[in-house]
Amino acid sequence: MRISDLGEFGLIRDIQRLSLRKSSSALIGIGDDAAALRVSPSKILLVTTDMLLEEIHFDFSFTDFRSLGWKSAAANLSDIAAMGGVPRYCLTSMGIPDRVSVEQIKDFYRGFHSLMKAHKTMLVGGDTCHSGKEMVISVTVLGETERTRILSRSGARPGDRIFVTGTLGDSAAGLEILKNGRGPKGKGPEAKRLIEKHLSPVPRVAEGRAIALAGCASAMIDISDGLSSDLAHVCEQSGVGAEIRSDRIPISASLMKFARGRAMPVLHFALSGGEDYELLFTVPPGKTKRLRSLNLPVTEIGTVKRGKRVFLVDDRNRKSRLKPEGYDHFRRTNVS
Amino acid sequence: MRISDLGEFGLIRDIQRLSLRKSSSALIGIGDDAAALRVSPSKILLVTTDMLLEEIHFDFSFTDFRSLGWKSAAANLSDIAAMGGVPRYCLTSMGIPDRVSVEQIKDFYRGFHSLMKAHKTMLVGGDTCHSGKEMVISVTVLGETERTRILSRSGARPGDRIFVTGTLGDSAAGLEILKNGRGPKGKGPEAKRLIEKHLSPVPRVAEGRAIALAGCASAMIDISDGLSSDLAHVCEQSGVGAEIRSDRIPISASLMKFARGRAMPVLHFALSGGEDYELLFTVPPGKTKRLRSLNLPVTEIGTVKRGKRVFLVDDRNRKSRLKPEGYDHFRRTNVS
Repeated sequence: MRISDLGEFGLIRDIQRLSLRKSSSALIGIGDDAAALRVSPSKILLVTTDMLLEEIHFDFSFTDFRSLGWKSAAANLSDIAAMGGVPRYCLTSMGIPDRVSVEQIKDFYRGFHSLMKAHKTMLVGGDTCHSGKEMVISVTVLGETERTRILSRSGARPGDRIFVTGTLGDSAAGLEILKNGRGPKGKGPEAKRLIEKHLSPVPRVAEGRAIALAGCASAMIDISDGLSSDLAHVCEQSGVGAEIRSDRIPISASLMKFARGRAMPVLHFALSGGEDYELLFTVPPGKTKRLRSLNLPVTEIGTVKRGKRVFLVDDRNRKSRLKPEGYDHFRRTNVS
Repeated sequence: MRISDLGEFGLIRDIQRLSLRKSSSALIGIGDDAAALRVSPSKILLVTTDMLLEEIHFDFSFTDFRSLGWKSAAANLSDIAAMGGVPRYCLTSMGIPDRVSVEQIKDFYRGFHSLMKAHKTMLVGGDTCHSGKEMVISVTVLGETERTRILSRSGARPGDRIFVTGTLGDSAAGLEILKNGRGPKGKGPEAKRLIEKHLSPVPRVAEGRAIALAGCASAMIDISDGLSSDLAHVCEQSGVGAEIRSDRIPISASLMKFARGRAMPVLHFALSGGEDYELLFTVPPGKTKRLRSLNLPVTEIGTVKRGKRVFLVDDRNRKSRLKPEGYDHFRRTNVS
């Protein structure tokens, strides 16, 4: 069977079946933002890993080494944030082709460590090797949290409110600008801001931790594949449906301005665009007040429902099915 | 500067300088077989990661997916073994090109998990994505040990005896046979055994743990790059030299028979051949009796000396310098 027929998630399910099935200390295994492993009665180790391949995940026409380093760090820190954890250590493996210089690799690590250092996260290992043609990067981040504070994707319950941090769609719009234009030169401030959000996203580590410490959320995920896709992950793993109000989805002024007069509606970027690295989380109605008291940059966008389906409700109360449109590597449904 | 001018280890030093430098809980960071992180007053988390790239680390002319899966597991388990630890969890990331089928990926995981399950090591995460042309694999293994039992590369002291497990050079000879002949078909039992040792090496997890629990070793490393190279790592990190007796290096009957009548001396495979995944460790003279009482398959091959240099002493007591001849990815000094 071809992998494109089975899809990434089907393949992962098959791989999982071949593994050792049970471990009393693996509280969360495959299928969440990070694994959660009990290493002492109270302490939970979080582990996440991401692979970035040249021409698949990044393209040196649109990024430089420093931005790539930053983003490799951001993507993994965001997974720890989505579990409500604190990042502690990282490992990097790299396959480097001949054409890449020492200075370029150091630039990668300048970007990578500027973000890791800001989060007091230390490089403790890795693997560096020669690669044939393309640059290959694999980053692993270890973090920690407490047993009672783990935030998985599976805790959403009907009636819970759905929140997101920040604004959505900026990163996808930034990539669009880069693809059409070759760099930020000569671009207006709005375009530059969107490009910046694509190249140097800021993971919501402090926000994720504050939400976990306040104990107000029932489920959390980071938006790396796009709102429609990541919300679908939460619904599937929680066994629930959802209703999202399109007029509540937070859109930045920059994206509004960029989308004006273009064929592509602004919602397209927000719903299907990946790599925003914002957090999506659900809050039981009795706990929204506690969330508000944290003064975080969050927006309520909808409600968890019974059933399995996710609907988008527009400003005239018209309902339509919202299907996941994010990235499945093998099905190639990427629309960002 | 080109990376080939700086070399793998020079590059790693440069990368390390850009990282956060100090963490009271990172007992061992970059530069050992695995990082050692204190996660509770008594418990130490071990983490190791390896990247395997098609055409650089493996070639489907000489291996199948099942063997590749086994070996990916073995290489990482061997690093945990070299720290005296117990493997617990693993993560796998994979970049998969179009031509690879679901069945082939499942074969990889059949090989991978047959070894991981034997060591009660559970798959808890990873990343699966599409790759352009070549297969990319990255494996991370987490293990654990106790604070007092960590075995680093840096504890060897002058006078300590040098031991290795098993026999050396078999894997490199097995690869040589595969390169010259296309598979084990029509080969005699000796050649088949050497090929088996190359394709399905058995990591010395039980031996590494027994040595750590007995508290008899001062330093340990796994032989993945070749004896000359891995002994040099221990000497460099311990600030010592060494003397190895060539007639004490354990050579299997299969390798003896294979090398007979060939231009390549048997010692070449043992000293410079990689991927044996045996353990090299040093034992203070007062503790060799305790080691012997464990009844492990080990051989004493030399003694740790003052200074920095490593010598090979032959059966007529002639001394020659032994320089590292293992694998540096960028300098391309691989001779296996």
